[in-house]
Amino acid sequence: MQILADENIPLIDAFFSAFGEIRQLPGRAIERAALADAEVLLVRSVTRVDAGLLEGSRVRFVGTCTIGTDHLDLEYLRQRGIAWASAPGCNARGVVDYVLGSLFSLAERQGVDLASRCYGVIGAGQVGGRLVEVLRGLGWRVLVCDPLRQAVEEGDFVDLPTVLRECDVLSLHTPLTREGAHPTWHLLGREQLAQLRPGSWLINVSRGAVVDNRALREVLAARSDLQAVLDVWEGEPQVDVALAGLCHIATPHIAGYSLDGKLRGTAQVYRAFCEHLGVPPSVQLDELLPPPWLYELGLDGGADPAWALAMLCRAVYDPRRDDADFRRSLSGDEQARCSAFDALRKHYPPRREIDGLRVRLSGEAPLLRQLVRALGALPV
Amino acid sequence: MQILADENIPLIDAFFSAFGEIRQLPGRAIERAALADAEVLLVRSVTRVDAGLLEGSRVRFVGTCTIGTDHLDLEYLRQRGIAWASAPGCNARGVVDYVLGSLFSLAERQGVDLASRCYGVIGAGQVGGRLVEVLRGLGWRVLVCDPLRQAVEEGDFVDLPTVLRECDVLSLHTPLTREGAHPTWHLLGREQLAQLRPGSWLINVSRGAVVDNRALREVLAARSDLQAVLDVWEGEPQVDVALAGLCHIATPHIAGYSLDGKLRGTAQVYRAFCEHLGVPPSVQLDELLPPPWLYELGLDGGADPAWALAMLCRAVYDPRRDDADFRRSLSGDEQARCSAFDALRKHYPPRREIDGLRVRLSGEAPLLRQLVRALGALPV
Ligand SMILES: NC(=O)c1ccc[n+]([C@@H]2O[C@H](COP(=O)([O-])OP(=O)(O)OC[C@H]3O[C@@H](n4cnc5c(N)ncnc54)[C@H](O)[C@@H]3O)[C@@H](O)[C@H]2O)c1
Ligand SMILES: NC(=O)c1ccc[n+]([C@@H]2O[C@H](COP(=O)([O-])OP(=O)(O)OC[C@H]3O[C@@H](n4cnc5c(N)ncnc54)[C@H](O)[C@@H]3O)[C@@H](O)[C@H]2O)c1
Repeated sequence: MQILADENIPLIDAFFSAFGEIRQLPGRAIERAALADAEVLLVRSVTRVDAGLLEGSRVRFVGTCTIGTDHLDLEYLRQRGIAWASAPGCNARGVVDYVLGSLFSLAERQGVDLASRCYGVIGAGQVGGRLVEVLRGLGWRVLVCDPLRQAVEEGDFVDLPTVLRECDVLSLHTPLTREGAHPTWHLLGREQLAQLRPGSWLINVSRGAVVDNRALREVLAARSDLQAVLDVWEGEPQVDVALAGLCHIATPHIAGYSLDGKLRGTAQVYRAFCEHLGVPPSVQLDELLPPPWLYELGLDGGADPAWALAMLCRAVYDPRRDDADFRRSLSGDEQARCSAFDALRKHYPPRREIDGLRVRLSGEAPLLRQLVRALGALPV
Repeated sequence: MQILADENIPLIDAFFSAFGEIRQLPGRAIERAALADAEVLLVRSVTRVDAGLLEGSRVRFVGTCTIGTDHLDLEYLRQRGIAWASAPGCNARGVVDYVLGSLFSLAERQGVDLASRCYGVIGAGQVGGRLVEVLRGLGWRVLVCDPLRQAVEEGDFVDLPTVLRECDVLSLHTPLTREGAHPTWHLLGREQLAQLRPGSWLINVSRGAVVDNRALREVLAARSDLQAVLDVWEGEPQVDVALAGLCHIATPHIAGYSLDGKLRGTAQVYRAFCEHLGVPPSVQLDELLPPPWLYELGLDGGADPAWALAMLCRAVYDPRRDDADFRRSLSGDEQARCSAFDALRKHYPPRREIDGLRVRLSGEAPLLRQLVRALGALPV
């Protein structure tokens, strides 16, 4: 079996070499002619997969090692009976780590106890759903707004006006949509931003245009009580430099960029491919992940829980590093800034997730144990 | 034996109760009448110890659990044959941790490799001497300026003009002196500040007036390439708010405020007292120190050394927390700011030192092992 893969998919050999011959190309060089006799096509978001690419080819399976599928013509694949798979949620944990790190930074700067705040999670899919779980596990108060889930499930959902009225922290985790009953384009527009509670924080790690960036810039300039954390920008890689300057944390769309998440993307497509072939998966991601740099921490049971929480998360990942790198890149002209945006993403330093960090706890410390577990770390 | 002690001396009972009856008073309430039959007087810097206090008393030993002795009339004590002891260097390690934390924050913000910089340590006593040892242990280039030591010892010393010419980082660790061959009052005045190398960093954790604060404010306002870290201020607890606003890190004279350092102060005076009595010390500080909150870290041998260094130090202490607390206190009128300055020092949260942190290293990792040891942590 011949496999054609984007050269930027990590661990491709480890996962796929048992199935046949692998050929790797830059994503943008994957064209009709390059497919040749390939039966399996593995891509990332830069390769458009549609009739133009596949018509007349021998491809029977398309895997995209990304959470999104906008670059796949799913209707065409269905018509031709070509199986496909993506990697939903592969980078969700990385985004959760980013949000936690941003919260600790905001809390430190503002002198606020995170446990005293009310959190509004808007969009509770792969990322938002995990975030809700972690925040609730920490014992914090969380309201969830997801009208699409609300329409089909039981559960405690609220609407956006309620979030705006009740929450001190708003975290956005919807896709960007312009159609349907609940479009998210400018979900937080001028009107909604005007309703933000005094002293509240807005975190956007979804898609830039879910927030009206111009309106946000104006409201941040007018109200110094508000704080914003932005990882995504309307019109990326162009960024409103004045808006970035008003943000507490500003980063170039890297919230989900953990090494674990990238490798998990390959692993998820590999498992889907095994299922497609009807063979049991034999390669395990855990065996391929390099050992984490920080693999263990020993905490005294008497440690202050708030201190321990922040320290644990930051020891693994602190978004202030990426904020610093990004801010330095915001000088220079627009073209230089756009290249820098892409370069920071392309050459992103390897980063690990907190999931699975072993935490030795001396003494009973039931509260600390609960918090460590809520973070996704392993109390031992 | 009767012992009178400042109530703010920690662990006083554990160290001194075997010697007699201990009475504790607020430092400012320690007056002639309060001494009664006390033979031992234990103070901190708020109690002035001179003829006015001691004349006619039965005091034979004065201990100050501070590094400074400005509040003791040493000449009077000598004349009367009253023994005395202070706690030189007790908080030196805390200051070193603060300087390291500031360096990691500056490096992150400026995108600078700390190993590529040349460090100038001005004043190489208890604090400066330890700092030189740590920085050299990390393999960094350090020039030392200490004309008083230079006059009496062998060793590689340079003068201040050389430091200004060669160093990218200047760290001040002199006492504040106005007399003698090498007075330090405004040691960095307008003229010296004008000579700072492009992109250099100035760290002052000695005494505020070693730097001309007004000149520093002007030079920082004019040159955005320079960065300053100030823990001490001319005219403390009054602070030049505009100067603080221009600093990368600004804190209220807490660089040395580790819990270990405070308890070490009592232990040092205790040992001096034992020597004065000619009895062997029986109480050990190590047995009295509470276990550190973070007692152990496990690092993979393949960890990036620069990342590991910063992470280890920050997990123990990151001065950005104190910087945030201080900045919030800089609003309000001058009286409120002065009270806040004192309150931040008085209610300082317990903080531990990196000295003695156990670091498990998997694999050989000789460089990492050397760096961990240079920090004062214990590779295991
Ligand atoms: N910044 C990053 O690095 C990064 C990483 C991963 C994901 N993302 C982005 O985060 C978002 C969430 O990703 P995901 O993997 O969780 O997606 P998902 O599809 O699993 O979840 C999206 C959720 O949003 C809900 N939703 C849709 N419209 C809504 C509306 N109007 N109001 C409230 N909720 C609504 C959906 O019902 C769904 O539950 C996406 O935009 C994704 O592109 C960004
Ligand atoms: N910020 C804090 O929390 C904190 C904590 C501890 C010490 N300190 C201050 O740090 C400074 C150093 O403390 P220490 O315990 O190391 O004192 P120390 O007396 O042990 O060392 C001071 C050194 O400075 C040298 N020196 C004197 N004049 C000099 C000059 N003109 N140029 C260069 N060097 C000169 C001396 O020779 C000596 O080696 C003191 O001012 C002390 O008050 C501040």
